[in-house]
Amino acid sequence: MSSTTVALSDLIAALGGDLLGGSDIRIAAIAPLDEADEHSICFLANPRYQAQLATTRAACVIVAPTLAEAAANRGSSGGAAIVTPEPYLYFARLTQWWAARTRPAAQAGVHASAVVSPDAELGEGVEIGPLAVIEAGAVIGDGARIGAHCVIERDAIVGEGTRLAPRVVLGYGCRIGARGIVHSGVVIGADGFGFAPSKQGYVKIEQLGNVTIGDDVEIGANTCIDRGALSDTVIEDGVKLDNLIQIAHNVRIGRNTAMAGCGAIAGSTTVGANCTIGGAANIIGHLNIVDGVHITACTLVTRDITQPGAYSGAYPFEENSSWQKNAATLRQLHSLRERVRALEKK
Amino acid sequence: MSSTTVALSDLIAALGGDLLGGSDIRIAAIAPLDEADEHSICFLANPRYQAQLATTRAACVIVAPTLAEAAANRGSSGGAAIVTPEPYLYFARLTQWWAARTRPAAQAGVHASAVVSPDAELGEGVEIGPLAVIEAGAVIGDGARIGAHCVIERDAIVGEGTRLAPRVVLGYGCRIGARGIVHSGVVIGADGFGFAPSKQGYVKIEQLGNVTIGDDVEIGANTCIDRGALSDTVIEDGVKLDNLIQIAHNVRIGRNTAMAGCGAIAGSTTVGANCTIGGAANIIGHLNIVDGVHITACTLVTRDITQPGAYSGAYPFEENSSWQKNAATLRQLHSLRERVRALEKK
Amino acid sequence: MSSTTVALSDLIAALGGDLLGGSDIRIAAIAPLDEADEHSICFLANPRYQAQLATTRAACVIVAPTLAEAAANRGSSGGAAIVTPEPYLYFARLTQWWAARTRPAAQAGVHASAVVSPDAELGEGVEIGPLAVIEAGAVIGDGARIGAHCVIERDAIVGEGTRLAPRVVLGYGCRIGARGIVHSGVVIGADGFGFAPSKQGYVKIEQLGNVTIGDDVEIGANTCIDRGALSDTVIEDGVKLDNLIQIAHNVRIGRNTAMAGCGAIAGSTTVGANCTIGGAANIIGHLNIVDGVHITACTLVTRDITQPGAYSGAYPFEENSSWQKNAATLRQLHSLRERVRALEKK
Repeated sequence: MSSTTVALSDLIAALGGDLLGGSDIRIAAIAPLDEADEHSICFLANPRYQAQLATTRAACVIVAPTLAEAAANRGSSGGAAIVTPEPYLYFARLTQWWAARTRPAAQAGVHASAVVSPDAELGEGVEIGPLAVIEAGAVIGDGARIGAHCVIERDAIVGEGTRLAPRVVLGYGCRIGARGIVHSGVVIGADGFGFAPSKQGYVKIEQLGNVTIGDDVEIGANTCIDRGALSDTVIEDGVKLDNLIQIAHNVRIGRNTAMAGCGAIAGSTTVGANCTIGGAANIIGHLNIVDGVHITACTLVTRDITQPGAYSGAYPFEENSSWQKNAATLRQLHSLRERVRALEKK
Repeated sequence: MSSTTVALSDLIAALGGDLLGGSDIRIAAIAPLDEADEHSICFLANPRYQAQLATTRAACVIVAPTLAEAAANRGSSGGAAIVTPEPYLYFARLTQWWAARTRPAAQAGVHASAVVSPDAELGEGVEIGPLAVIEAGAVIGDGARIGAHCVIERDAIVGEGTRLAPRVVLGYGCRIGARGIVHSGVVIGADGFGFAPSKQGYVKIEQLGNVTIGDDVEIGANTCIDRGALSDTVIEDGVKLDNLIQIAHNVRIGRNTAMAGCGAIAGSTTVGANCTIGGAANIIGHLNIVDGVHITACTLVTRDITQPGAYSGAYPFEENSSWQKNAATLRQLHSLRERVRALEKK
Repeated sequence: MSSTTVALSDLIAALGGDLLGGSDIRIAAIAPLDEADEHSICFLANPRYQAQLATTRAACVIVAPTLAEAAANRGSSGGAAIVTPEPYLYFARLTQWWAARTRPAAQAGVHASAVVSPDAELGEGVEIGPLAVIEAGAVIGDGARIGAHCVIERDAIVGEGTRLAPRVVLGYGCRIGARGIVHSGVVIGADGFGFAPSKQGYVKIEQLGNVTIGDDVEIGANTCIDRGALSDTVIEDGVKLDNLIQIAHNVRIGRNTAMAGCGAIAGSTTVGANCTIGGAANIIGHLNIVDGVHITACTLVTRDITQPGAYSGAYPFEENSSWQKNAATLRQLHSLRERVRALEKK
């Protein structure tokens, strides 16, 4: 809430880094280089944008050692620079420090309008927001924050320091570890999609597993993670999921894998650690993807991936009239190859 | 609620248009031409459907001047017609007039079960639904309607006459202008998806910007609009977003652009004014799309678009066995081209 | 809640089947064959996995008659087997029986925190969860369960025995039949996406229809079904929709059709009975798809389908560098065909 300024020297004291010039400069905002004013601090991580150093009005720029001189001697004003081996990481920590300074602190306690079972277990310093529902057997770890309108069903577990934004459902028996962040609209523990066909139509397979989520996991708005059919759906430590993602029953996602918005992983597929999955990419069920795989946006993965690397499968867009011709021809591609083969045989 | 009929003369008095015949006819429903009965009013905007005039049982048909005679002399009953230069637009206004007649009026006041901070500011004639949460510093404009279970976080602003359906989250510091409509499940102001990689895993970049939404914007169910990293995500006046759309941090969408369901726009991309984006189309991050661009369904846009026009990139579907052959050949397309080149050189 | 064991003889008494061996065996869990221990019951429906019979530790395996002998004589312990013509269907019924044994029974009654209009009609044995909102004119059928934070708007109807998970919105005038299951975050009855263009921007077409959903329908988390423009959007009996699906206004989905997650059906399209639609598949508007059509994942359907069968249209994924070459060549496919034609003419 405070918009008061902060001295660069205080910032350095908190976050480290070597300050070149201007320890008396006061900062009012973090800004992109090209939108900065004389009260802004910026970062420059990609050498491609080095030219912006000459024109930025920023009071201070965070740079790597190789750009220290250029940053310190920039423009006419010659503002300050913070030199650090990893400017982008420094920037990330700066945003955290900034948010802690400016956002309201947690309000430990249970809002009077919340509906909390006497058989739920609340840790120290827990914050339960207005109109949240905490059922019997639920366990809320120390320092966790449960937003307004959340529903924590029976026997579900929220780890220490984890923060649920307003309106999250954590289904019965599901658990999330420590220091997690779950955004609004997330549904953890809805039934997986399982039916046995019969002459009378589909017969539901009750989903008897849970969802197990590790520590340091972030889950974006309106994302869904279904409970397992028999055993659990598992999200390992450090996984980051963006908005509107679908994780089906019995999927396992390995440590530190990140997935951009709108994609889906179908049932029983295992994705390794340290993977990245682009926006709107989909992986069909019962596959195995090894560690270190990078799938680009809008790709559909239909087979196991056994080697680390980058994989793609999006149709290349173009002007509509050109696409119409090429797409129509694509329907004859196999016969076109046969025609080439015939020509080669002549 | 009312299902009483309305006289065509009253309808004309409210909405204009030239009435041919039957001012004493009473209307009970608006219907499609092919489902109409003798108490229905219909519109005919597309001359392709002109043949339906001969068979429709509709009491009255809304048509353009070129079809006035055909409409007035249709069938045996020779029902009424309303002649207007833009029949589809007239139909739209008719639906609005009809809804205002038949739906319950807003119930100004704060429901007893809502949790409203004494430090929130409520305009004249505001309706706050059951179990809604309005935090400190929030401002609700005159005549706005906040549905059941909505959460308006601290310092968020809702413009005059804007209507939030049940269960909308408007995050702290975010704002939406006047006359907006936001459907259930929408999340405005969840964190953008930003992390700095480090040896210890991803480090969160706190998202310090907000979301700024203009006037006359409609947002479909379960759509997400993330807050900006440093500056704001911006949705300009008149934008229409369908359901289950993902708008990432620092996107800007220009005036009167419409986007069908299930698509996504990745971080920092700018889309111009008067664009249309088809269903499930995706645009990657950091791009610039000019005004007047039309992107068809399921297209992935991977480069700037600098010229107005239509762009496409969906794979053409076909019978599965044929698709299998063509798709397999597609994996050899580059070498097929080399083979053609070799043949040409002979 | 109970984790006590159950005798195989009790299970057979409830569900039928022929038991080979071990009627005194007690079961503690249902498990996959390869995760089973000596207290587990498993099923084997796909003969491909028959080899697992030799190694599984399961106490009992559900099999078809053709595998009865192999199952009864498996391994060293020679555990029990249940023989039944349709093992997968038997397994489905077993999960239902198991869930009924182990999950808390419905708590008939209205939670004190719910906001229920005196003009709503509640059937026998109804359960209304904490903080649910039931508006005037709503009808809740006998034995229905309305979860926490649900909103049942005016004149909406919930059929007998239908279960709504926490946080479902059923819009005014919409109805769902008997024995349905609706997962968290579902929005039924938001406005369809309809606007008339005008010089002043888009003019809203008020959506005056409702949503009509049949019996035995299951709807996954965060799925949206929009209300019709004039007449209703219709979901017929036995339809199963997974998570994060978009069903636009005036769509009709026929009996026993199942649709995997993240797909969309655009406005006014009719899909027949007994179809399957793969994950992230999309169907554009105003189409007609006959009964018995199977659409594979990520396909975009752009034309009517008049014959039953399987249809596909996903781009085949591959290693990124190979994709780059092939996708670039795809933009020249039409001219490549012209070159082949020219070679053929020589």
